[in-house]
Amino acid sequence: MGLFITFEGPEGSGKSTQARLLYERIQALGYPVILTREPGGTRISELIRRILVDLRHTEMAPTTETLLFSAARAQLVSELVRPYLNTGGIVLCDRYADSTFAYQGYGLGRDLDELHAITTIATGGLQPDLTFYLDLDVEAGLQRKRWARDRGSEASKAVSSSGPPAEWNRLDARDLAYHQRVAAGFAELIRNNPERWRRCSAEQPLDQLAEQIFAAVEPILERVARLEPH
Amino acid sequence: MGLFITFEGPEGSGKSTQARLLYERIQALGYPVILTREPGGTRISELIRRILVDLRHTEMAPTTETLLFSAARAQLVSELVRPYLNTGGIVLCDRYADSTFAYQGYGLGRDLDELHAITTIATGGLQPDLTFYLDLDVEAGLQRKRWARDRGSEASKAVSSSGPPAEWNRLDARDLAYHQRVAAGFAELIRNNPERWRRCSAEQPLDQLAEQIFAAVEPILERVARLEPH
Repeated sequence: MGLFITFEGPEGSGKSTQARLLYERIQALGYPVILTREPGGTRISELIRRILVDLRHTEMAPTTETLLFSAARAQLVSELVRPYLNTGGIVLCDRYADSTFAYQGYGLGRDLDELHAITTIATGGLQPDLTFYLDLDVEAGLQRKRWARDRGSEASKAVSSSGPPAEWNRLDARDLAYHQRVAAGFAELIRNNPERWRRCSAEQPLDQLAEQIFAAVEPILERVARLEPH
Repeated sequence: MGLFITFEGPEGSGKSTQARLLYERIQALGYPVILTREPGGTRISELIRRILVDLRHTEMAPTTETLLFSAARAQLVSELVRPYLNTGGIVLCDRYADSTFAYQGYGLGRDLDELHAITTIATGGLQPDLTFYLDLDVEAGLQRKRWARDRGSEASKAVSSSGPPAEWNRLDARDLAYHQRVAAGFAELIRNNPERWRRCSAEQPLDQLAEQIFAAVEPILERVARLEPH
């Protein structure tokens, strides 16, 4: 039933760009594919995203944050991801449930069993077939993104390439120690489930990283039927 | 630690009006009291409310709805209800977690254990000390509200008295059978926990109902210290 591929990694690691490049390449080969992102990807989920990323919402409780991410995810899975996988298509998603475990769980110290329970309810247990972790030194990643913000939209475009412009939001504004706990959390998630993950260095040139990602996807593309040419 | 009183009942039963009347009476007696509502009551929760009640959001998945109600509730409890109860105050709330069980559980057929798990996470297990159920024939209640909508804001004011104007929203627009399942759900919730609930007929005159409600609250007011006159 299709192929579900997700991208994870610290801020500024270039996930959105790589997801976009893989999307274009798979599409050019004639496979049915969609590219989406979390939180977001549907009308309702994008409205939820606006509440989540708003820098003014400093009073947001950690539980509220977890439930909002999960609500956005539930809508994305139910409205877009599952239906498209059921038609045999490929879904690429910029972040998914692993981010909840890494950011809310390891980063903010929320109970992992609780997060697991909410996530299972939100997704109906849907797991990616393959997840790329774009590995980047945390401090370097935050500097990249801050630099993009300070240079305005011109530089944002340069960093995030054809993806949406990099935005400096409420979640980036947390301190360095938090982002380091998040990175350690991702490392643990990878250790717990190594066959699903592909860890790639985000410090190599863009096109070289894109090749490495495509090389990991190519062998499983045969599970998906190409579109009839029209 | 304070007193937490909630109001439940079908659409059009006059919950908001009665909550407001009780609020004014308790305040006039010199007790520290706040009146709030669900979903809503805080800046973030009101933004979530907007997504929930929007009539255009017909594509909203039931799980998304549950998680959004829970997110709004988590923020309300963490930011407003718990802190105010901790100062020894009285919190009156127009709807609370029982609505989730009645509307999403009994009404939409969502798994009750799942709802219980999410609700416990959202509220940290906070239960009301007392809950009023304003009992009204479902069909009559919907007619009251529809009538108010059709007459516009003038009639809405007449129906909801000093409370916020009655709004005809995405959740009201469901069919009668749904609202009947909800009413049966409330009846079951009351049977399961009779000492917390007071069931009152919403078909008696406003001031008579207000008296009945105040008579149930008066004996437990002594748990709360009055404010010093200033």
